[in-house]
Amino acid sequence: MKMAVNTKNTTISHQVMKAEFVRILLSNGFSKGRAEECAVIFTLNTLEGISSHGVNRFPRFVGNIKDGYVIPDAVPSLVSRAGALEQWNGNLGPGPLNATFATERVMEIAETNGIGIVALANTNHWMRGGTYGWQAARKGFVFLGWTNTCANMPAWGGTDARLGNNPFVLAVPYYDDAVVMDFAMTQFSYGKMESYQNEGKQLPYYGGYNKKGELTTDPGEILETFRALPIGYWKGAGLSMLLDIMATVLSGGMATHDVESCQGESAISQVYIAINTRSLNNFPSISKSIDEIILDLKKSSKESSETKIRYPGENVKAIREKNIAEGMIVNKGIWEKILSL
Amino acid sequence: MKMAVNTKNTTISHQVMKAEFVRILLSNGFSKGRAEECAVIFTLNTLEGISSHGVNRFPRFVGNIKDGYVIPDAVPSLVSRAGALEQWNGNLGPGPLNATFATERVMEIAETNGIGIVALANTNHWMRGGTYGWQAARKGFVFLGWTNTCANMPAWGGTDARLGNNPFVLAVPYYDDAVVMDFAMTQFSYGKMESYQNEGKQLPYYGGYNKKGELTTDPGEILETFRALPIGYWKGAGLSMLLDIMATVLSGGMATHDVESCQGESAISQVYIAINTRSLNNFPSISKSIDEIILDLKKSSKESSETKIRYPGENVKAIREKNIAEGMIVNKGIWEKILSL
Repeated sequence: MKMAVNTKNTTISHQVMKAEFVRILLSNGFSKGRAEECAVIFTLNTLEGISSHGVNRFPRFVGNIKDGYVIPDAVPSLVSRAGALEQWNGNLGPGPLNATFATERVMEIAETNGIGIVALANTNHWMRGGTYGWQAARKGFVFLGWTNTCANMPAWGGTDARLGNNPFVLAVPYYDDAVVMDFAMTQFSYGKMESYQNEGKQLPYYGGYNKKGELTTDPGEILETFRALPIGYWKGAGLSMLLDIMATVLSGGMATHDVESCQGESAISQVYIAINTRSLNNFPSISKSIDEIILDLKKSSKESSETKIRYPGENVKAIREKNIAEGMIVNKGIWEKILSL
Repeated sequence: MKMAVNTKNTTISHQVMKAEFVRILLSNGFSKGRAEECAVIFTLNTLEGISSHGVNRFPRFVGNIKDGYVIPDAVPSLVSRAGALEQWNGNLGPGPLNATFATERVMEIAETNGIGIVALANTNHWMRGGTYGWQAARKGFVFLGWTNTCANMPAWGGTDARLGNNPFVLAVPYYDDAVVMDFAMTQFSYGKMESYQNEGKQLPYYGGYNKKGELTTDPGEILETFRALPIGYWKGAGLSMLLDIMATVLSGGMATHDVESCQGESAISQVYIAINTRSLNNFPSISKSIDEIILDLKKSSKESSETKIRYPGENVKAIREKNIAEGMIVNKGIWEKILSL
């Protein structure tokens, strides 16, 4: 969120960013429509402040296409259907396109059945999970969704990575907007820890273990051990395992331990659940009851006069509008790499 | 789990415990069948090692009946139905009976539709949430369920309790058993912190804040501020809020901020989601794929030679069988109180 002029950064408009992404995707086997759709997601993720799963990740996404992990023209195919439950094979298509498809499909099911579930095997990294929460909630659906990942977090009591950080997304419609929670099972992502390290800063809270097996706030020590701390210690480790088991069982796809590498992180499993709020008896008063919950939260006594109490997703609209108006701050090296693709 | 003879403790068989619970419930307005069903749940929770929501909580449950928070003969009534989505009013019936009913009902819906959801307003504390996870998973259903609670945890950046600790249950069938995760959004429950305080022990990790606003492992300091730490700091606070919003919106019931007191903790809202594993294309291989996930977890390099790597719910069967065979260790004061009811 720093706006100071920085020689390491450059400012890019969303139109320019999207056009570059489209250009690159077209030269990497994407059809025009799919290049456009995929470019919009990477641009939107950046616009909404999640550059780690937007512009910063784009070169790696292109690498994953070149390496054959992501198949540009592959689309999901139906494996089985039983009422409001569907299993799909993602056929190794682009993660964001498969995820958008699965979210649309689960909303169609929930439109008719009140609730629906799509379990998606053999897909790829969806980038920012929150994107699909917003997609569903803005159309009036409560959404729960999660993905498994490569092994990047130890079991509780373990020292080597056996669990995924398995991001979990919960979203609820709120007027024409949404309340969206999108979180991974590690206290800090590896990307976040790298940022702290690059800035020579300590983490604000314990983020993992050092070589001596002690909890530490030093990002470099954790990047060395690859032993990130699960949220809530044993609780986050347990939740990660259940999300992996559920994604694997429900989709019939691969579990975290089957995922070959964290570089490709390919052929993963995901779950999408949507609930149609228009089916609810209390539909007309939903946003008002969320108003009251938020109003109560805002009445909190605060840690300090500078503390801001926010609900999950509260800042997203403002960040997006600011970035639309002023352009997005992008690391120069990353942008130059993108221009060269 | 201490088995040493302790003058503060007594050993009670499950038959004796259940009979006492039945006797007391019969004299408090329960029909024979409902007294039996409710006594079984309180006894089972104790048998499976969760005395805090079994025998230890029983006197308070009876107090809540006497105070009119829990209405012994009230049963849930259907509010609305749309496909596989149902909203029910718990009519302030006993929480464990309402929860058992909702779990049975959501399985019936999922049996036909692959997935089902029951949102239950106006119910009471379900005691141990995991009980309903086991109930569903043992019958072949993947289960997600949660409850809101009274306000007992601050917002992130706040110092007064505005959020609930909103326990969340995830369960998956595994052979004739289950993998079950049942966790609240606070790092330690208040009951657990009281136990540490009574034993003069520090918590193993930060559990909340002291009066100076510093993180502390001293249970007494946290019980004084009532400022328990959410799991994963801002992440647990955000997840708590989403679970409350979802429970409120989906059930049309009360939110955490509406719950009058933590003593009665009455008229709360809950969500039950069940998915029928028999509807899955890969149904025959589900337990085998969980085997592989567990096998990989068990291969973890361990913190120390004494470390045991466990999956959520792994110990439950052994604890139950031991307690069935040897009787349950119960605090003498609590048991005497129960005998006097």
